Amino acid sequence: MNKGVLNILGKIALTEVALMFPSLLVALIYGDGDWIYFVGTMVPAALLGFGLSRIRPAETRMTSRDGYCIVAYGWILISLIGAVPLYCTDQFTSYFQAFFEIVSGFTTTGASVLAKPELLPHGVLFWRSFTHWIGGMGVLVFVLMIIPMKNDTSMHLVRAEVPGPIAGKLVPRMKRTSMILYGIYTVMTAVLVILLLAGGVKLYDSLCLAFGAAGTGGFAVSSAGVAGYGSAYVEVLLGVFMILFGINFNIYYLILVGRIKDALSSEEVRCFLGIIAVATAAITLNLFQSVATLGETLRAAFFQVSSIITTTGFATVDFNLWPEFSKHTLVLLMVIGACAGSTGGGLKVSRVIILVKSFLAEIRYIVSPKSVQTVRLEHKYVDKVTLNSTRTYAAAYMMLVCLSTLLLSLDGYNLITNLTAVLSCINNIGPGLDLVGPMANFGIYSDWAMVLLSLVMLIGRLEIFPIFLLFSRSAHGK
Amino acid sequence: MNKGVLNILGKIALTEVALMFPSLLVALIYGDGDWIYFVGTMVPAALLGFGLSRIRPAETRMTSRDGYCIVAYGWILISLIGAVPLYCTDQFTSYFQAFFEIVSGFTTTGASVLAKPELLPHGVLFWRSFTHWIGGMGVLVFVLMIIPMKNDTSMHLVRAEVPGPIAGKLVPRMKRTSMILYGIYTVMTAVLVILLLAGGVKLYDSLCLAFGAAGTGGFAVSSAGVAGYGSAYVEVLLGVFMILFGINFNIYYLILVGRIKDALSSEEVRCFLGIIAVATAAITLNLFQSVATLGETLRAAFFQVSSIITTTGFATVDFNLWPEFSKHTLVLLMVIGACAGSTGGGLKVSRVIILVKSFLAEIRYIVSPKSVQTVRLEHKYVDKVTLNSTRTYAAAYMMLVCLSTLLLSLDGYNLITNLTAVLSCINNIGPGLDLVGPMANFGIYSDWAMVLLSLVMLIGRLEIFPIFLLFSRSAHGK
Repeated sequence: MNKGVLNILGKIALTEVALMFPSLLVALIYGDGDWIYFVGTMVPAALLGFGLSRIRPAETRMTSRDGYCIVAYGWILISLIGAVPLYCTDQFTSYFQAFFEIVSGFTTTGASVLAKPELLPHGVLFWRSFTHWIGGMGVLVFVLMIIPMKNDTSMHLVRAEVPGPIAGKLVPRMKRTSMILYGIYTVMTAVLVILLLAGGVKLYDSLCLAFGAAGTGGFAVSSAGVAGYGSAYVEVLLGVFMILFGINFNIYYLILVGRIKDALSSEEVRCFLGIIAVATAAITLNLFQSVATLGETLRAAFFQVSSIITTTGFATVDFNLWPEFSKHTLVLLMVIGACAGSTGGGLKVSRVIILVKSFLAEIRYIVSPKSVQTVRLEHKYVDKVTLNSTRTYAAAYMMLVCLSTLLLSLDGYNLITNLTAVLSCINNIGPGLDLVGPMANFGIYSDWAMVLLSLVMLIGRLEIFPIFLLFSRSAHGK
Repeated sequence: MNKGVLNILGKIALTEVALMFPSLLVALIYGDGDWIYFVGTMVPAALLGFGLSRIRPAETRMTSRDGYCIVAYGWILISLIGAVPLYCTDQFTSYFQAFFEIVSGFTTTGASVLAKPELLPHGVLFWRSFTHWIGGMGVLVFVLMIIPMKNDTSMHLVRAEVPGPIAGKLVPRMKRTSMILYGIYTVMTAVLVILLLAGGVKLYDSLCLAFGAAGTGGFAVSSAGVAGYGSAYVEVLLGVFMILFGINFNIYYLILVGRIKDALSSEEVRCFLGIIAVATAAITLNLFQSVATLGETLRAAFFQVSSIITTTGFATVDFNLWPEFSKHTLVLLMVIGACAGSTGGGLKVSRVIILVKSFLAEIRYIVSPKSVQTVRLEHKYVDKVTLNSTRTYAAAYMMLVCLSTLLLSLDGYNLITNLTAVLSCINNIGPGLDLVGPMANFGIYSDWAMVLLSLVMLIGRLEIFPIFLLFSRSAHGK
């Protein structure tokens, strides 16, 4: 392996050790005795990190291949380390389960193998939610912010980690961009925490809920989930904030620098909000009965639509019991996902727009083969490379969903369970339907299925290609 | 509408009237009284056909747009006419059901709303199976064969009707190609009929089974299906012939002209046979228990794999009761489908090969962005236009499956039923799983769902674009 890659992996391990301190502090405050799990993880991880970061690369140039390798290995490394404190508790039957749980945390999926997360000690439970917050913005973007790195290296890392069809070209200096984005992210999270506290939620829960919403993760701190707070205020607040975190962060940057008109004219955001409005209306109509008031039905529909399309995965009701049309709508929202450049997952709204427009362009091309057909997004032409990679992405996505569902069926569960488990993992959502519905958990799957689904979550979060690069012979050597 | 289009639609109607004569003859022989249904359909249809074919186009040039229009309208027209004899019987609750049934026939899907097809009079039952045979090779290819047409018109029609990513460029003169292809098709069907007769199946059933296998349709003539003959010989014979009809017909042409080496080296056919072998082995392992012998299990697995991947849809067992892994495997085979240029449906093996290879090329491109990555199929480079249209096709396919499943859920059935119903229709297979499994039927769906599924079958058979052209404003007028 390239020495420069090992060097950066060492720095990533050290960064994770630093990120474990708040959880260690929580463990010490609550005195559940789980501080020792953190110390027992952090000391060996720090030694490993120091060792690796002392490897000096012969040449400092980084290729885009190295960038992809760092991202893929980096995410696997932090998951391997991050799973240790969870495995030390007696709530996981195997290390594979703990690994699945923490990959679900970092990838902001929020799928859990635990029926009762409240049985975890407070420090570990906090760490589990905190991984959502770290993973939401991208682990490496964080590393970039605190570690001096060359510009080309940064660019390659960001291109491999930041989701969406077109890498944001906001500010040329990556370090400054990262700091601005993390700044916006931190302020928004803090505002949510304050508003949750104002709604009577206690501090510990407010922090964990805010991490879950900000990273569009969805881990709850108790088996009762968001419904457990029994508060319409909390429900609507989270519903709105999930959407805010599902919007392209470039928009906030534009607002920050005063380009409010540009921000409001974003095609992707308009489309995203439009889909939310239509889906909420459709589900409300489908659900509405005389038992609940229209307002209650609308609130439940809005919360669930917001939670699923942003790929957060919080649940206030068991939507597994909803009528079929509402369930089918949620499955479609799972696939669409949030905006590119947000903390959410899924195919991304901008990719869906490009796919629909290129389908229409193909039809126009058939009608008049001599005309030149172009696809526009955000009032700009989409170049051919982006068009092709978007289509390849969609095709690869489809093949991966089919293949993973087939492999998962070896565990013997039905098609709804397996398909929605895979969709939930590849789109980083959390709950699926039937046996992996919002009131159930992923503990039903065997250890090898845990490994498969962990890979699927990483593939989804890193947008397919980096993970596959690890299996490609030509990516190593040289 | 273009006058030339109307003129050809008239000729299509007349061709269908001619194609109804064998069924009329069967009706007269069996004397069930259904001859009147045929006469009642054929006379008005012939008048319509004569009327339309008297419209003379001002200019004789045809654009590819016109070709797509003819194909789309032509298929809808023959289905509207062809459904009438079925609707005249008392077995369908609405004309929409009869329309669904005959679209299922022409598109070689084989999905039925009838629990007991044997209740249909013999003439109508024969017509229902005969539409598989007509549709398998393409209705317009048949029209081309019997009606004088300009070369450019023929080319446009064939391009719009013949399935697969690359239009066959076998013989420059379309008329001759059509005759050769129909010749091969007829001889192979006749051989199958003779072999079925040799196995003790009576003539009427032999003809109907052969139409179903040749067109890869799958309509049975009784509720017992292929299992009703209780013969291992019939089962294996049909299993082998379904595969033969699922192979690219270019191969037979190559064999016919002595280029046997070229025929044997076909990448698509090798891949197709490889998938069949692997899937049969996997399902046999998954199914094998001490109750049945290994031979019986293998035979059941082989028959079902052959029936599903060729998109025929015959069933000898209720695979709805198979273990989950086997069912999931069948669903994956549904999506893959048969070879391009065969009578089968699905995405087509060659498209799957192109998609997998272009995924691998994308990974290689990421590893070394300066290298030129190409995709090869059948030892030739796949040009960019074909690559792009294959990816666009896959993306459009995915969107259509998602959207149709969502719309179908308005009828209130579960996700497995709706998803496999859509997959079964868009890939022209026949049975799905759960409520539309091999021992169930599509009669559960409402009339509007019948229209939706009929469209989905046509979209699948005509490979998406021609049908959408009908909704495009610019396709009409000039």
